[in-house]
Parts: sequence; structure tokens; C-alpha cells
Amino acid sequence: MSLNTYGHLFRVTTWGESHGPALGATVDGCPPGVEVDEAMLQHWLDLRKPGQNKYTTQRREPDAVRILSGVFEGKTTGTAVQLMIENTDQRSKDYSEIAGKFRPGHADITYYQKYGLRDYRGGGRSSARETAARVAAGGLARAALGKLAPEVQITGYMVQMGPHGIDRDRFDWDEIARNPFWTPDARAAEDWATYLDDLRKSGDSVGAVIEVVARGCPAGLGAPIYGKLDTDLAAAMMSINAVKGVEIGDGMAAAALTGSANADEITMGPDGPVYSSNHAGGILGGISTGQDVVVRFAVKPTSSILTPRKTVTTGGQETDIITKGRHDPCVGIRAVPVGEAMMACVILDHLLLDRGQTGGVRTSIG
Amino acid sequence: MSLNTYGHLFRVTTWGESHGPALGATVDGCPPGVEVDEAMLQHWLDLRKPGQNKYTTQRREPDAVRILSGVFEGKTTGTAVQLMIENTDQRSKDYSEIAGKFRPGHADITYYQKYGLRDYRGGGRSSARETAARVAAGGLARAALGKLAPEVQITGYMVQMGPHGIDRDRFDWDEIARNPFWTPDARAAEDWATYLDDLRKSGDSVGAVIEVVARGCPAGLGAPIYGKLDTDLAAAMMSINAVKGVEIGDGMAAAALTGSANADEITMGPDGPVYSSNHAGGILGGISTGQDVVVRFAVKPTSSILTPRKTVTTGGQETDIITKGRHDPCVGIRAVPVGEAMMACVILDHLLLDRGQTGGVRTSIG
Amino acid sequence: MSLNTYGHLFRVTTWGESHGPALGATVDGCPPGVEVDEAMLQHWLDLRKPGQNKYTTQRREPDAVRILSGVFEGKTTGTAVQLMIENTDQRSKDYSEIAGKFRPGHADITYYQKYGLRDYRGGGRSSARETAARVAAGGLARAALGKLAPEVQITGYMVQMGPHGIDRDRFDWDEIARNPFWTPDARAAEDWATYLDDLRKSGDSVGAVIEVVARGCPAGLGAPIYGKLDTDLAAAMMSINAVKGVEIGDGMAAAALTGSANADEITMGPDGPVYSSNHAGGILGGISTGQDVVVRFAVKPTSSILTPRKTVTTGGQETDIITKGRHDPCVGIRAVPVGEAMMACVILDHLLLDRGQTGGVRTSIG
Amino acid sequence: MSLNTYGHLFRVTTWGESHGPALGATVDGCPPGVEVDEAMLQHWLDLRKPGQNKYTTQRREPDAVRILSGVFEGKTTGTAVQLMIENTDQRSKDYSEIAGKFRPGHADITYYQKYGLRDYRGGGRSSARETAARVAAGGLARAALGKLAPEVQITGYMVQMGPHGIDRDRFDWDEIARNPFWTPDARAAEDWATYLDDLRKSGDSVGAVIEVVARGCPAGLGAPIYGKLDTDLAAAMMSINAVKGVEIGDGMAAAALTGSANADEITMGPDGPVYSSNHAGGILGGISTGQDVVVRFAVKPTSSILTPRKTVTTGGQETDIITKGRHDPCVGIRAVPVGEAMMACVILDHLLLDRGQTGGVRTSIG
Repeated sequence: MSLNTYGHLFRVTTWGESHGPALGATVDGCPPGVEVDEAMLQHWLDLRKPGQNKYTTQRREPDAVRILSGVFEGKTTGTAVQLMIENTDQRSKDYSEIAGKFRPGHADITYYQKYGLRDYRGGGRSSARETAARVAAGGLARAALGKLAPEVQITGYMVQMGPHGIDRDRFDWDEIARNPFWTPDARAAEDWATYLDDLRKSGDSVGAVIEVVARGCPAGLGAPIYGKLDTDLAAAMMSINAVKGVEIGDGMAAAALTGSANADEITMGPDGPVYSSNHAGGILGGISTGQDVVVRFAVKPTSSILTPRKTVTTGGQETDIITKGRHDPCVGIRAVPVGEAMMACVILDHLLLDRGQTGGVRTSIG
Repeated sequence: MSLNTYGHLFRVTTWGESHGPALGATVDGCPPGVEVDEAMLQHWLDLRKPGQNKYTTQRREPDAVRILSGVFEGKTTGTAVQLMIENTDQRSKDYSEIAGKFRPGHADITYYQKYGLRDYRGGGRSSARETAARVAAGGLARAALGKLAPEVQITGYMVQMGPHGIDRDRFDWDEIARNPFWTPDARAAEDWATYLDDLRKSGDSVGAVIEVVARGCPAGLGAPIYGKLDTDLAAAMMSINAVKGVEIGDGMAAAALTGSANADEITMGPDGPVYSSNHAGGILGGISTGQDVVVRFAVKPTSSILTPRKTVTTGGQETDIITKGRHDPCVGIRAVPVGEAMMACVILDHLLLDRGQTGGVRTSIG
Repeated sequence: MSLNTYGHLFRVTTWGESHGPALGATVDGCPPGVEVDEAMLQHWLDLRKPGQNKYTTQRREPDAVRILSGVFEGKTTGTAVQLMIENTDQRSKDYSEIAGKFRPGHADITYYQKYGLRDYRGGGRSSARETAARVAAGGLARAALGKLAPEVQITGYMVQMGPHGIDRDRFDWDEIARNPFWTPDARAAEDWATYLDDLRKSGDSVGAVIEVVARGCPAGLGAPIYGKLDTDLAAAMMSINAVKGVEIGDGMAAAALTGSANADEITMGPDGPVYSSNHAGGILGGISTGQDVVVRFAVKPTSSILTPRKTVTTGGQETDIITKGRHDPCVGIRAVPVGEAMMACVILDHLLLDRGQTGGVRTSIG
Repeated sequence: MSLNTYGHLFRVTTWGESHGPALGATVDGCPPGVEVDEAMLQHWLDLRKPGQNKYTTQRREPDAVRILSGVFEGKTTGTAVQLMIENTDQRSKDYSEIAGKFRPGHADITYYQKYGLRDYRGGGRSSARETAARVAAGGLARAALGKLAPEVQITGYMVQMGPHGIDRDRFDWDEIARNPFWTPDARAAEDWATYLDDLRKSGDSVGAVIEVVARGCPAGLGAPIYGKLDTDLAAAMMSINAVKGVEIGDGMAAAALTGSANADEITMGPDGPVYSSNHAGGILGGISTGQDVVVRFAVKPTSSILTPRKTVTTGGQETDIITKGRHDPCVGIRAVPVGEAMMACVILDHLLLDRGQTGGVRTSIG
């Protein structure tokens, strides 16, 4: 990853600030001949769009994406694709008060120290609005995967809000799209609604854990050592705003297991090797096994809250701050489509990398 | 990160297999004029070296590092540095039995499917022996940090073995080097000794959690979006063999917090801003704050165990496997100096990146 | 260089087609605090703009550049800068005739073979219109150089049109901006005017040689082996449309010299080493000496001509083609500001790289 | 290209100094299953080896290459390949005299200014000895091409020595290997022998022009804009020691042509499009056409000569220098296998890149 770029062959460079005229993604290395149009990308952007319910920021952005290059007569040409989203509902005056103060938990202070100036309007470049560009790029990655590996299905969902986790026994794939929290546990969705409503009214916020699964991912994606699939997924997810932890398969819990409990034993199925379990999260030695690729990440609570917090000014005066603006009480909700987009980009990138080095040929067992 | 390379400006490419003639690291972009010799690097390699006590593999490798290039009259010249470690105690016949079988939890099966062949001797490239090259490169990074930012102190330690965590109230920096587990909790060290001894005798293994802290890290390292310091740390740690989860600051636990509890409030101290707490792990918006940079990672239990596990052969026959060889009952122990090395490389790399873009000048507050 | 990106730290990714809605450059890694606005960039774009005189294409494009991100209150923030230029004078119907035919000397046939489709309108991505994005990025690079190394002066000029070279004895820096050919030789400018007029009327075109010089470039930019300043300059210039050769200093003519004639002898001047000559073009061992950095490149004649040429159709039929549209009889003219822009980007990039690795400190001699 | 690395997917990082213990190449991204052994690589190294006749340096180096990693049972495994060449005939005392003086035309002065120190023994890292590592890597690239694209044939030869060019009418592919100058013109070989002998005796040296051709290169390699095949070839050749100019196809001479003369007209042959000429050097819009890929580069005369030249010391004293040591009167000779190696690496790299993005499928015409 470079400063504003990620990916090896499918390379995404994002640009734009929260309150500038526009933001977007410059996508390099997309395979040619992929059918894509703005409506296909808009589908994914609409899932991340703010203002959809009372649990997300009330900023009203249509997040309408335009394809400015790299697509001709409905197909990618193999050249750079520019995806632009214009900002329309900036209320920069909301931020004038914080121009000279650093919001705790935000990038305000570090940007100022490092660069000597900062676009304080809505956090500028550090705003989670940047993730709209990721979702647009992820939409293109999905379209390419649809052509190259149509069996891949990528789904994200929330498995924990604040201290409240889901019950895996109630896991229902179909439930995910039915509730505002993208959770597969209908009961949890109900409980969280009440919990989050109370938090929001009290001017506070809360964190969450998101899980993203790639089903149907072919074996052989990834590489040894520093090009590991899990390494790139960890970087991709950690690069999302507010993420503080990333897990593959059993994740941190793997530390507590014995080797005998942790082993995913292998037997032969009708189509090749079958695993008795998936502690590994679908990745061995950095390379996909053909099982579900499973990633989880923790999102910290929104730092923009109405509860007063101590801070300092650019001039070094101590003061208090409350962050009014329009904010999500749980940014984890809107992180779900973002995590999916990152998974799509990483999987596609590794598919291309693997095809480059090996031709994409797999050696069969048995 | 590329397949065998990590870093932006301080770029490390490692090479070599567990049972080949040698392994090493090619280090590009090191600042010139850094005083370094083989003894300085050997110090760090000796900490990772196998066979030091009954809790680590009994393979006897001196891990003697040679500097083959890039250093002249005791100083780095600014050109590529080659660090080579010859293998001396290969017992490849230990592995002949597994040439045609895939060890569960290992990269054996995925390498075979992807590449069509694999160096099965000790896992070949997927062996944790590769981490010796990281430690050598990390030693060079430490030497460079000693010149450029001598106030940076990097320390790793074990905070959990299997299900047993340390008690943070007993945390003692000086204890870390005194026990074979690199843990700051002397009581835990005693308990773990018994626990691990039992596990080892039963032919099983266990996971661990390692924490690595960079104290004295200057503010301003890192970048927005994809060049975040935490993104690169997550990738660096996840690229270590057997790592399944990475956390920054509060990590996964941040999900359970409210915004008011999570805020690291800011006041003014004699030398600039002071934070009331460090939930963020020393990084805001991808950029270091000047607080301790805190990373944790979970290492899964060694997959090479004496307990029989089900697997298949390259020919597709189902069979059982036990992995004899010489293995660590808890690879997490030797992961401590490896985690430190990765931290050193990432911090130095970002120091150079920051100096490149901004000149390394910080804007003071107040 | 990646597919659509160049640069190590100052990284420019361009996007856009000749007849799409817009094109632009996404610039990553720009130092913060650089004063820049659209007018400053427009100055350079206006030099490359088509339709300025009868020697360039009559397409009427204002080439108005917009800064969409990365600049706040007149200064760069250190985050990604998006520079967008909207296309306004597309006449795509000019190209409908060539949709099914490949123009000799153009990328039409190779794009089609590689990607299976191509945006045939004006050559799509292969159009020299892409160079507007380079010039915009170059303008930003110049602004940054103005802050970091204000003594650097970058000037390009034409030294040969078709078979007619300039007379170096008539070289006059001030003449360059006075004639439509950017040539320092006033007499040559007169002769070329007649020559080119005749060629244009006959429906033909001609090549040119451009020289770009960076005066005041500090010593120490570049690196050994693959990060050589001349290597990056060669790549930068060769990546410009229609360029077929690149020379540093004496270039191809160096082959004919003896070692004694080629040596740039060194003596001491008041401010350090002084060279008796500059056969090397200001670069020794890939690193700048402090002399003028001198690069030359040859631009082939415009392939779009009115003289009928043999070609084939996508269906494999043999046919003839003449290329009507609106074309430059000598694209070399408009390549001058493009070469300057590439020089500016490469010099700035190496300034940042050098500062990253060495801190930008020079060891003085004597 | 990074400081010591080139290539996108087939990535070569070289290391080592002229008088250090060893030098080598770390090769990343090689396709798996390529049959290769040390003898196959040695074949190419022997062509570049010094001391073979009176026209090259009398340093006696066997240049024996060892494969230290990435190859198992005679085949590449897809992991990093380390190729090491030990130095055996260092006579570092030859250089003690120049430790404090800068040889004109060499990197001595720029390394010193930039890094503050330099390995003066034989030029250290700036020595053309580094090219042995390129040749070793090129040998591996050829082996991989032999598997992936066996129709590709790469041949380099000298077309000019000093002011004396070959006569293209006497071009004979079989002659190239028969004379010490790798020239296809037997008569030129005779003339050059006398010419060079005289120069050598007079203590002087001379430059040369090398041409490298890839025959049988498939259409479709390369990419638009910054990933052009010619861009990468220009960088690859310019990165070779002493190279001052690079040309593709007609190169600098293209400037003198008219558009009608320059057009490579297209007709249909039995197997697809056929070109009437190859002014373009086998590349259109950065992408290979299927014709011969033709690159030329100029090598300046060896700067190490016995004729006294003026220079200065590190202390700033003016002085004279003659460079004794053991040097090539025309380094261009040994640049021939180096140019071939770079061509092989670039072609293979683009073959992998193309396969990654497009799957390597070509759209046929007709």
C-alpha cells in the first residue's frame, strides 16, 4: 500500500475530502471486457449511503457515482477507471467551531502536527466519507469477479454491537438484508435497536464487530510470506476508518487453543479435499484453501459525541469540546458495505496476481 | 508488500528455505552512515535462535549472520545490504515421510495446489525459519533508528499463553528478559512453565498473544488512508507465520466501548499535548501521536504435533499423520523477537517516508 | 512505474480518454504547505493547449483544470490531489469511420488485440490528450519545487525538426518563448515555419527532437543501479506518446567518443567542484552532480496523416486509410511542455526520495 | 523501479559490491515449475565473464553462480530465488590510491556527496560487476520464457564501436557468436580488432552501440501510458552502467522522418496482420505488435583510462589521476549479454503482467 493506493495489480487510489467538491477512486489494472455501468456501482453505494435511517448520520448525500473513464460502450477497456462522487450536502459551518480545536479520538491533532495545516471541515481527508470511494471501487471489483470467478460471493454482517454479540445458533443469511444493522441474528437486531436508540439519545456512541466472508473463493489465492492473502486482508480492513483490530478465522481466540483442537483435519470429498472445520479462516500459509475466507474487524465507537471531552486548541489552550455535526451513533453499521468492498478488491487483486504468476492453474489432489 | 518484500523506502526482501543451504534478507533503502556490524545483528538473532531451552525446538542452528554487502568500514553505504544466514543443522530425512502427505494447519496443501510442487523439507519457504531473516533486518532497522531516532525503544513480550493471560498489575519491564517466555509477569512465567511442560509431554501445543510496544516514537509517523501506520503494522504482524489476529491499542475490545469511555482526552503538559489514556494505541487517523505505539497479535498453536490427525496424500488417499521433527510447543515464544523486528522495520520505514514527504518537521501546539 | 502511475513518492496516476467526459491526474505524496491554485496550473496547461496556432491541431479545448482535492485555503494538505480537465470539444463522429480500421503507427491494433475492444474515438486512452494530465501534475511539481528547491529551473525546447537541427552557436534562452516551436534558435524558427507549412499542406507530418534541461538541480539526487535519476528520466520521457529515443548528456553520440575526450574533468571552484564539460548530462552513477541535467528525446512524426496508407479492418479485410480529424503536423511542438512536466515530476520525486533516505544532507568537498 | 529492484511481477533485486565477499540477485515472482540449474545460468554468466580475451579486463573471476533458494529438485517453486556469485579475485590494493580522489566520469564524487562515504574498492556498488547479477537473473528469465513462450529468441550484438558502425548489408546472425565483439558484421569485427588494439595500447578507451532484438515476441505485451513495454525497456537499458541513450525501432532517427515514410503499413498474411516495415521497433502505443522488438543503447567509453585527467580530492585539492586497475578498453563488449538479460527480464515480466490482467488471451483479426 502506498499513501492513497492499495492493491498489486488491481490498484485503487482514492482522493477527496468530506467537504470538497467531490471525491473518488482511480482504479488501475481492471481486466478488460467487464460489463459495468453506473447503476451497478450505485447499488453498492446506496447500501453505504448516509441518512437511510435514524441509526446513521442525517447528512443527505445521494452519493451518485459517475464513471469518467475506462469504460466504453458498457465494458471496461483495460485502462484507468475514474469513479467520481460529488459532494452536495456540505454544511461546513458546522465545523467552524472546531477549526481551532482538536477533537479527541480524531485525526485532527496528528494531521496538524504532521502537515502544519488541515482541512477541518468534517475531518477533511480523514472523514469516513472516503469510504464511499472504496465502495465504488469494490463495486467494480465485484463486476470483474462476476466475469472471472462468478462463484465468489462476498457478504458482510455485524456480529457484535458494543458488548452485545450475536448468537451463532440463530445465524440466518437471509436476515442480513432485513434489518438496519446487517446482522444475521434477528433477535440481536431487535435488542440492538433499543440499545442504540438509548445511546443516541444520551449523546453517546458505541463500537461494533463486523465479519466479512468470501464464499466460493478458489484455492490458491495468495502467496508465501509478505504477499499473503491474510496479510493483504489485514491491511485492507485496518485501513478503514476507526478499525482497531483484524482477525482471520479464529483470530485472537486461536491463542487459547491447543494444536489438536485447532487442526482443521482433511478428508476427501467428491470434488477434492474437504476440511472438518475452518479455524484457519480459509487460509493456510497465506494461500486460500477453497473454504470460506473469514475476516473480522472491530470498529471503535464514533469519536464525535455530544458528551463534553477535554482537549486543547492549536494555540495550546485547554478547553472542552462537544462535537455537534451529524454523526453515526455506531459507525460500524455503515462499515459493513465498506468491509465487503475491501474484500472484493483484495480477492480480485489476488486472482490477477495468481493468474500472472501461475496462469491460475491448480494442481488437483487425487 | 510484494510477494517477498515489505516496506516503502526501507524495503526488506527475504529469501531461503528451512532446509536449503542458506536464507537471508536483502535490505534496500537503508540510510547511509549507520554503524553496524555482524555482532550487533547477532545479538537479536540469538534471542530468536532455536534450542535455547526446553520450550523451543531442539534444532541446533547457530543462526550466524553474515553481512555480504552494503556496509563498508563499519558503516552502511546507502546501497543494498545482504544479510545471509547459513543453515547447518538440516535433518531433511525427518521429513521424507511427509513428502506425500499434507500436514493439517500447514501450508503444505495450498503450496501444492498453487505451485504444483513444494519443498517439503521442514515446510520449505513456509517454515518459521524465514523469520530469522526478519530479525536480521530488524537488527539493521534498530541500528538505523539508533542514529535517526535514538529515543525509540521497541519491546515485545507475551501477554497470554493458551487461555492464561497475564495480570497487568504485576507488569514489570525488567522481568521480560528474565524468563523464557518474555513475559512481564513473573507469576505468569512460573505458571506457564508448568502448563507448557505438561502440554509438551502430551504431544500437544498451544497458542499465545504477543504485545509489542514502541516507546518514544515521535508524533507524525504514518499517513492518511492506505499508508496508515496501523495498516502497515497490521500487515507486518499478520505476515508472521501462524498469526491470526492483530490489534492496535484496545483492539477488538474497542468494539465494546462507548465513545465517551474510548476518548483519549487531551491536556497540555510541559512539552506539548498529553493524553489521559491510550485506547488508540498511539495512533490517530493512521498517524502516531507521540504516545506508546501498541500492537498485539495472536499466534495459533503449532500445527506440528504428535497427536494423530486426519489428512490426505497427494494421491488423494485418506490417512493419519503425526508430525515428529523438532518443534516448538508454543511458537509464540520465539515470535516475540520477530514481532519486535517487524515493529522496528515499520517504524524506520515510516520515519523515512515522513522525512521524504514533510522533511520530518513537526508543527508545535501552543 | 505501474500501468497508469509513475513516481516513487510523488506519485502521479493519470486517467481519461480523448473523447470521454474528462481526464485528469491523481497526485499522491505531494509535500504539504505548497501554495498552489488553479491559475498556477493553468499557466502550464495553456502552453500545451491545442489550437494556438496553425502548427497544432485545431481542436478547441480550453483545458481548464480544476483542483478537486488535496488543497485547502490555497495550500496543499499532504493528501491526494485530484486535477480534472473536462473535455468540451469532442467531435467523435470524426472517428466513426475508423472504428473498424486500424490506423498504421497508432495503438489501434495492439489495444484491440490485447483488450478485445478499444475506445476508437480519437484514440481513446492512447491519445496524446493524456499529456494534459501530465502537464497539470507537472505544474504541481513545479509549485512544490518552488518551495523546496527554488533554484531549480526547468526549460524545454526543440533542437531538431525533421532533418533540420538548430545551430548551437545561435542558442538564446530568451528566444524559446518567442516562437511557436519553442526553439532557442531564431533562424531555425523561421526556416521551420516554411518547412512545416509545406508539409502540412501536403497532408504529411514530421518528427522532432526536444531537449529538456534542469538548471540549478542540487547534487545528490538519484541512486545507484535501478533508482538512477537517468533511468527514471528515460522512463518518464519514453512514456510520452510517440517518443522513440531518449538521451542523457551526449546520448547516442557518446558511443563515438574516446575515454579521454569524454571525461568531464573536475577542478575546484569557489563553491565546490567545477566540471570542465558536461558530456555526462549532469548525472554520474545515476546521481546528479549539480551541473545541468540534460535530457533529449525524439518524437516520431504524427501517424495521423492525409496520405493514404495500407491497413486492415477488424474483420481482416485489406483497405486504405487516411486520417482526417484534427491533427498536429509536428506533435513534437506540443511535446515541449510535456517533457518539462515530466522533468519536474522526476526531479521532485527524487528530491523527496533523497530526503527520505539521507535527510537531504550533502557532504561537502574541501 | 525501486533503488535496487526492477520489475512488476518478475522482480529482481541485486546486491553486492565489486570487492565485497559476494554479489547476487534476489528474484521474486518467478513462475513455478521452471526447470533450471546452476549450469544453465552459468552458460550466460560465462558470456559476460571478464578475462576472456585481450579486449576485456584481465580480472580473473570465475563468476560461478550458486542457487541458494527457490529451486527444489531442479524446478522453481514459485518462491524467492537467490542467485549468489562470490568474488574471488579482488585486488583491492589497486584502489588504495584512489580512496581520496574522485575518478572523472565515475560515480565516486556523487556517491561521496550523497552518502558521505563510499566503498572505493573498484567503485563498490557502482562497478559494472553488478551486471553479473543481472545476467544471472536474465538466465532465470530465459528459462521461464523457455517454458511460457519458447518461441521468443533474444539476441544482442554490437552495431557500432567508437565512430565505426556496421554495414547492415553484411548482417549475419551466425557471425555474432564467432567474434569477440558480438557483431553480426565479420568485416567490422576485423576492423574493430585493430582499432581497439591501438586504443588499448594508447591507454584510452571507446564507446559502443548495442542492439538487442526479441524475435518471436507475442503481440499484446505492454500497456498504455506508464506501463509501456518501451518505457520499461528504456529504463532497463538506461540502468546499465555507462549507458547514455536508448532507442526503440528507428529511435532518434525517427525525428527526421515524415509521417508517410514512418508508417508501418499493415496487410493480411496467412497468420494475421503483417507489417511492411518495422520503424516502430515492434511496439505501438506501448504494446508489442508481434514484430521483432528492437532496442538499441549507447555505452560511453570506459572512464578508467591511463591518460591523466584533472580531478580533486575529498579534501578539495586539485590533482591529476590515471586509473590503473584492470579495465575494459570498450565496456560495450561485455554490455551485450547484459542487454540481453535485461530484455529477457522485461519481456517475461510483461508476459506475467499481461497474463494477470487479460489472461493472456489475444483477440484475433479476421
